[in-house]
Amino acid sequence: MQAELTISQAIQQMLKTHPYPNTLPFDELTWCVENCISCASTCTACADACLAEEMVQQLIQCIRTNLDCADICEATGHILMRQTKPDERLIFHQVEACQTACRTCAAICEQHAEMHEHCRVCAKACRQCEQACDKLLATFSL
Amino acid sequence: MQAELTISQAIQQMLKTHPYPNTLPFDELTWCVENCISCASTCTACADACLAEEMVQQLIQCIRTNLDCADICEATGHILMRQTKPDERLIFHQVEACQTACRTCAAICEQHAEMHEHCRVCAKACRQCEQACDKLLATFSL
Amino acid sequence: MQAELTISQAIQQMLKTHPYPNTLPFDELTWCVENCISCASTCTACADACLAEEMVQQLIQCIRTNLDCADICEATGHILMRQTKPDERLIFHQVEACQTACRTCAAICEQHAEMHEHCRVCAKACRQCEQACDKLLATFSL
Amino acid sequence: MQAELTISQAIQQMLKTHPYPNTLPFDELTWCVENCISCASTCTACADACLAEEMVQQLIQCIRTNLDCADICEATGHILMRQTKPDERLIFHQVEACQTACRTCAAICEQHAEMHEHCRVCAKACRQCEQACDKLLATFSL
Repeated sequence: MQAELTISQAIQQMLKTHPYPNTLPFDELTWCVENCISCASTCTACADACLAEEMVQQLIQCIRTNLDCADICEATGHILMRQTKPDERLIFHQVEACQTACRTCAAICEQHAEMHEHCRVCAKACRQCEQACDKLLATFSL
Repeated sequence: MQAELTISQAIQQMLKTHPYPNTLPFDELTWCVENCISCASTCTACADACLAEEMVQQLIQCIRTNLDCADICEATGHILMRQTKPDERLIFHQVEACQTACRTCAAICEQHAEMHEHCRVCAKACRQCEQACDKLLATFSL
Repeated sequence: MQAELTISQAIQQMLKTHPYPNTLPFDELTWCVENCISCASTCTACADACLAEEMVQQLIQCIRTNLDCADICEATGHILMRQTKPDERLIFHQVEACQTACRTCAAICEQHAEMHEHCRVCAKACRQCEQACDKLLATFSL
Repeated sequence: MQAELTISQAIQQMLKTHPYPNTLPFDELTWCVENCISCASTCTACADACLAEEMVQQLIQCIRTNLDCADICEATGHILMRQTKPDERLIFHQVEACQTACRTCAAICEQHAEMHEHCRVCAKACRQCEQACDKLLATFSL
């Protein structure tokens, strides 16, 4: 029987088996891709979990920001997965926007982290993605 | 029989019937949303049309940039459709990234515009979206 | 000055300028693509508008279904925009899933249509997309 | 220092901390969500890697199907992440469409698996997702 393929393994193997050499440093790139995908999923789930809370009325900013952050992380993850003929400026600006979104969403989720376990997990995923964006941005030579 | 609802009408009616007042000026906002959605679709279709060209090998940068631009425009369109508790800084950075993507993609499609009709249409959609982003960014007070 | 390009025009021109002949009838295909894109945007906006309503607690099923329908319509729209080497069975099943999502979302939005103008518009967009899927499915020879 | 949060952990924690009880069995649900996300990323990357191959002309069906499969898996992953007021029929049809897409994409990638390492990894991710959909569909009572 074949061993199972985890998400992290799948992403790393895909980035490694690309016919072109990576234009960005492998570790920073891979970590940022993984965190974009993780954060997109977490924010999608947190928006939905907030919606199910009795106090949903107090969570509408959190839901809205979760949805924005999910959209941005997903787009950023896609772009970073691609290694064919990249445009450095386009990528840089999108990763910057992603960092802003993650920072904003983390700050909002952190306000509810003690009350709602899902906001605690989501805040952690957002902060980790914010930092991964930061590390990747530092490798650009723009 | 009910009159048909076009995409533009649907978008405008949704932005008008939102319970909150628009935080961004209606005309610039609506025009930017429509162009993000239009550009996302056009880039998705242009990537696919390039793939079907005999000279696909010369179009791989165009395809890759089309896919990036589609992802970014789609995310930006979603975010601009939302009017509940917006975060001005998050939106500003994403619209900036969108403008960069549209400018980059337009420049590449324009190189093939005389040869491939789909690149000509796509370049036009990208330039129009770039300008719509520019007009919307000018309304921010950041 | 160049005339502006509307979303409908952009989509139609892209479907017309593809190097391959359409495998699905042009009118049914174009109408379905336009409606998928329109419905995706409308549902994204309706989820956000519901979130801003005072009675948000009674609208959580509507919000959730809007988000599902938006995701499905967007994926379906992408797939139908592509005309290179299509897989008929894959497309058929996705359009069927899209029809189900639109029917479900329309039924829920219709319950709030008299109270919330955005749900009325969204219900209309969903019904129109449901019918567009139906007409396109009827052209398949599977 | 806080331990890092992997994608799998993030997804599992989000599904566990939702205020509503899961309507689908936890193991099958989680496995399917993880595989949808993994397969969406893998297909996005495989489309891009194929684009960079010298023999891109022979890979255009693979690229097109990768893009379709990525769109469908992403939408399906989003829907399965949500646990608030689910519509069983909508979910069932989307997971069915996802299974079809994964089966189709796996079969095409398998044809190139010996020649292109990225197609081998992608085929594996697609097959694993196809099976995860199958197991989840078996738990429905429709």
